[in-house]
Amino acid sequence: MSAPVAAQPFGDRLAEATARRGTPLVLGLDPDPARLWPGTEPVGAVPGATPGEHAAAAVQEHCRRVITATAEHCVAVKLQLACFERLGPPGWETLHRVAALARANGLLVIADGKRGDIDVTAAAYAASLFDGHDTPWGHAPGLGADAITVNPYMGSDAIAPFLEGARRAGGGIFVLVRTSNPGAADFEEQQLATGEPLWRRVASHVAGLDDGKGALADAGAVCGATAPERLADLRAAMPRAPFLLPGVGAQGGTVEALSAAFEPGLGAGLVTVSRALVRAHEQSGGTPEAAAAAAADELRRACLQVAG
Amino acid sequence: MSAPVAAQPFGDRLAEATARRGTPLVLGLDPDPARLWPGTEPVGAVPGATPGEHAAAAVQEHCRRVITATAEHCVAVKLQLACFERLGPPGWETLHRVAALARANGLLVIADGKRGDIDVTAAAYAASLFDGHDTPWGHAPGLGADAITVNPYMGSDAIAPFLEGARRAGGGIFVLVRTSNPGAADFEEQQLATGEPLWRRVASHVAGLDDGKGALADAGAVCGATAPERLADLRAAMPRAPFLLPGVGAQGGTVEALSAAFEPGLGAGLVTVSRALVRAHEQSGGTPEAAAAAAADELRRACLQVAG
Repeated sequence: MSAPVAAQPFGDRLAEATARRGTPLVLGLDPDPARLWPGTEPVGAVPGATPGEHAAAAVQEHCRRVITATAEHCVAVKLQLACFERLGPPGWETLHRVAALARANGLLVIADGKRGDIDVTAAAYAASLFDGHDTPWGHAPGLGADAITVNPYMGSDAIAPFLEGARRAGGGIFVLVRTSNPGAADFEEQQLATGEPLWRRVASHVAGLDDGKGALADAGAVCGATAPERLADLRAAMPRAPFLLPGVGAQGGTVEALSAAFEPGLGAGLVTVSRALVRAHEQSGGTPEAAAAAAADELRRACLQVAG
Repeated sequence: MSAPVAAQPFGDRLAEATARRGTPLVLGLDPDPARLWPGTEPVGAVPGATPGEHAAAAVQEHCRRVITATAEHCVAVKLQLACFERLGPPGWETLHRVAALARANGLLVIADGKRGDIDVTAAAYAASLFDGHDTPWGHAPGLGADAITVNPYMGSDAIAPFLEGARRAGGGIFVLVRTSNPGAADFEEQQLATGEPLWRRVASHVAGLDDGKGALADAGAVCGATAPERLADLRAAMPRAPFLLPGVGAQGGTVEALSAAFEPGLGAGLVTVSRALVRAHEQSGGTPEAAAAAAADELRRACLQVAG
């Protein structure tokens, strides 16, 4: 794992990028081969390619189209690893190419794999998603992500190796704290003997990871965008943490509910949208490109207004 | 996702395989390219191959040697996905080949990825690890795992789609309940307002997933093998769940502490060992093959004695 020389802290990079691009919008890419944009061809797939290779090539072209159409309104892409992994080894190749495409469009790359493990296993995941792994045969490059999502269930030693890997690469982590799905009530919302819900204990842990460097912390949180009052609690518990905010649009959240997220700055409220952009043409008509760009522009403006 | 016709329930397959092979031992494969068995060559790597391709070919040959040496004493392999993913796309290829090798040696395949996500994303992970995904260009095969590990933090809707995918393929899941790492104290052990620790709430949920079919449940649990009294509690909470038991050997657990795990049958106590087999020659001398086989045989016998 070759350490970049004095990587700029993620919190600075994130704050700078959101300010420069004037947007906290994150393009969520979770491509389904059966629902790609109309007219998408599996570019580069050769005759005799396997179904996985064909599908991966088509997914890559779809992602290229979506990124090209919406990049100017976004600060990052969030790559849903599962959607690439299900295509097998060719999907993994495509994942790397889409990350490169996003970078070439000036976007940060958030790898959404929700990994959680300890010790050398966690370090292996971090190597895979950030800066790669030094083998006896040379360096195997990683995905080059700027940030990743992490599952906290196993505890502090299932978070620390990811943050260590992130810092080495000038990257960050987003720990699942209070997610937007109904099942969050089952464990995340469980009231502890101390009176607080479990998610608040996790939030305190995340806040404690902040080393005070950078304009924002490099240990962030995934927080569902579906309940404004809870978001204020989350912000109080993690004053400098960037929030990754899924749930706007398809899951019923609105940008107006997010003001607490933006308190430390525009980069602290990363509004993640997928279907609301990628399927905008199904509502509004027009080309997928134009509909996605218009939806992204509208959401970006709404964010800027709420962020003030 | 092509459903196999009337797949036999995982609990039956597991009970049958452990009885037939006379062992509940699981070979953990978490290969580090810098610590492969002496004399391992990257078989099949061609001149000009990338470092990742070289390392993946060497890892594959190492895993082949370990599987060949120990298979007769084991019922399954547990593949640590992170260790393959860190080699990039070639590592993903190797993962598929090692799973096929394990199957050819009569072993069940447990994919240890500790995935946790909801809805279509969880379904995509399940497709990736079990039976693959139907694309408009044909079927992209999955890893063909018999079981996978799952992280429960996000709640019931982050577990159900994995179990659904598993059942479609006659497979099972192992939900992280009470792990063997020190950080388990941070959240898993948190006392709830009801007086029980969080892990017990998760255990109750896992027990509730049992549909009563098969000799054992197909919803199992990952339980650290490091505290016998807790294991009795875990067994009481999940009477028919197969336990995946890491922590014997390197992490200080002993087989003698595991008797509660075996109460529902030999297949309910899957003792997972990695370093204790793969690095046995560093302690005992001899060839890695002979040392691993001897260590596996000894552990297998110890398990049978405790299982009674």
